[in-house]
Amino acid sequence: LHYSIAVIPGDGIGPEVMEEGLKVLGAIEESHGGIRFARDVMDWNCSYYLQHGKMMPENGLPILKDYDLILLGAIGAPEVPDHVSVWELILPIRRAFQQYVNLRPVKLLKGLESPLRYKGHADLDFVVVRENTEGEYSNMGGRMHQGTPYEMAVQNNVFTRYGTERILKYAYALAEKRSKKSVTAATKSNGINHSMPFWDEIVKEVSQEYPGIQTNLYHIDALAAYFITRPETFDVVVASNLFGDILTDLGAAIVGGLGLAPSANINPERKYPSMFEPIHGSAPDIAGKGIANPIAQVWSLAMMMDHLDLPELSAVIMNAIENVLQDGKVLTPDLGGTATTKELGDEIVRHIYQT
Amino acid sequence: LHYSIAVIPGDGIGPEVMEEGLKVLGAIEESHGGIRFARDVMDWNCSYYLQHGKMMPENGLPILKDYDLILLGAIGAPEVPDHVSVWELILPIRRAFQQYVNLRPVKLLKGLESPLRYKGHADLDFVVVRENTEGEYSNMGGRMHQGTPYEMAVQNNVFTRYGTERILKYAYALAEKRSKKSVTAATKSNGINHSMPFWDEIVKEVSQEYPGIQTNLYHIDALAAYFITRPETFDVVVASNLFGDILTDLGAAIVGGLGLAPSANINPERKYPSMFEPIHGSAPDIAGKGIANPIAQVWSLAMMMDHLDLPELSAVIMNAIENVLQDGKVLTPDLGGTATTKELGDEIVRHIYQT
Ligand SMILES: CC(C)[C@H](C(=O)O)[C@@H](O)C(=O)O
Ligand SMILES: CC(C)[C@H](C(=O)O)[C@@H](O)C(=O)O
Repeated sequence: LHYSIAVIPGDGIGPEVMEEGLKVLGAIEESHGGIRFARDVMDWNCSYYLQHGKMMPENGLPILKDYDLILLGAIGAPEVPDHVSVWELILPIRRAFQQYVNLRPVKLLKGLESPLRYKGHADLDFVVVRENTEGEYSNMGGRMHQGTPYEMAVQNNVFTRYGTERILKYAYALAEKRSKKSVTAATKSNGINHSMPFWDEIVKEVSQEYPGIQTNLYHIDALAAYFITRPETFDVVVASNLFGDILTDLGAAIVGGLGLAPSANINPERKYPSMFEPIHGSAPDIAGKGIANPIAQVWSLAMMMDHLDLPELSAVIMNAIENVLQDGKVLTPDLGGTATTKELGDEIVRHIYQT
Repeated sequence: LHYSIAVIPGDGIGPEVMEEGLKVLGAIEESHGGIRFARDVMDWNCSYYLQHGKMMPENGLPILKDYDLILLGAIGAPEVPDHVSVWELILPIRRAFQQYVNLRPVKLLKGLESPLRYKGHADLDFVVVRENTEGEYSNMGGRMHQGTPYEMAVQNNVFTRYGTERILKYAYALAEKRSKKSVTAATKSNGINHSMPFWDEIVKEVSQEYPGIQTNLYHIDALAAYFITRPETFDVVVASNLFGDILTDLGAAIVGGLGLAPSANINPERKYPSMFEPIHGSAPDIAGKGIANPIAQVWSLAMMMDHLDLPELSAVIMNAIENVLQDGKVLTPDLGGTATTKELGDEIVRHIYQT
């Protein structure tokens, strides 16, 4: 088996956690023979932007298109407005390659404790399917009356039937493969009265194609509260771009923090490369200190293995992570330890060679 | 002192919790003389809608305008789409009366435990200032290509300088009166690239008028996670309509649940009546059973007293609530007890007469 990966370490702690990710990838290749990942590293990030006036070369997307996979660290630096760095790199990739599924597990790993007093491992194991190409993240909109007291900004949320159906169908199909047979959809049709009632209608339509699956439709405000009060009731949660974004950071918080949470930007048709990244950002405040937690990045590699239909390799990575957490000896500061990014990465690698 | 109140019990558990609210109001009048609240009850709700085809009479808003205050229970019934009931009653009131501040305390009351394992009373005491008239809740938008695969819905978020400045100024002025001197503003300018960068600019401008106040600007996804991981860092949190909605349900969850959380829809200029309501909905699933928690509604009366510059009466109500919670004998099922709505209301009243 041979796959090509475009590696974009990015900014801040991105390159630091990516280094550990690539180390883990190397360990997988070496220890579990027969698989090769050719990797090319792209220096597209905010420094690149400051030099070239753009986040990636003109032909950045065509270049990426020829790879099987994309690995991303994190993007963003204080010197470049986020809406520039993100809109010129992450979002174009998600869209150009029709990575319309952003898959984000909310799972309490062995060895970790939830900050929720009465919730344990059995209560915290679900997955969020986030729409990843449209909705509230639209570049439609603008400003008027600048420089006057009447200045205003308008931003359009754009929900297409096409985009909404495909993400919902993915969520229901995923629920069919899992045991609880339940889909929870996030809405806000009581307050947002054009796009969200449309979303609700399509939820209703698609749900009728999956009679074996139970559907719950909750307003995003209530749903966010339920993540705290009854996370054990969820199996597959499906949400629009913005709602999925909010719910997954919240999900990360209830299972131990942003340093752990991975994400897969998937093109289910496999026509284009899918992209794997931590959900955390570039964390300029701790960048350069070598103390960032690399687990989110490493876990994203396990998601990549799942995407490649290599569940046994995904399991090797996840077991290594969980073993390290259960040992509890080599942990980064966010997990209460004093280890460096590199030490934690090395420890994961050590466990991989042991399996 | 004499005030007039328009009372809208609403739907579902609304009338049940309102009954206890009015009982508490009566107890305040009787026990702490010299103040009178004349109340008129309006039967505007979903049953009214099913009979009359509208949520309130044509002249509903002019009728309300003549009152000093409005008390709302909860609105919404399964037979009427939420975007109808809400858009014809709650939202018109918030807008017509320029109740542009929606004030929502996130405070762990004495006698309660947070579901957050390591957080106690000292960690959970802040307030969310939610913009209440514009932003993501706009009636601008619509659909096209109905009945085709190309169908789509567009919804406009509308942020005006006027609307954004006034809510931010309110938040900063409030922070000046509190001890931590800090404002945390919710944004999402990395993903939402017209309205939220505009919001950020105005945050920056307004913050410069309040040099004594520290400003933190966080993306809503990270901020939601921080509500779990470090709620003790917040003092005044200011957010757009949607973000404030989500954050306050989440806030309710971390301090004991939706049955407790109150909200004040304030017209700071006092040109129009302000409205006080629980943040919970009509909860059709438990309506009619007499087990709803009336505390959110009663707490909203304490907020009303604060609005009327009667902090001593607000304190009487809050002490009564906290005494009941600390006793722990008369609690509704959501709080782990077996008491009815009425029993809990009576118990609060008993404590009011004791002070
Ligand atoms: C009923 C609904 C529209 C409302 C809102 O979202 O404003 C409610 O959730 C609230 O928070 O008051
Ligand atoms: C960087 C940002 C635009 C991005 C998003 O909101 O999609 C991030 O928060 C994420 O969740 O991947």
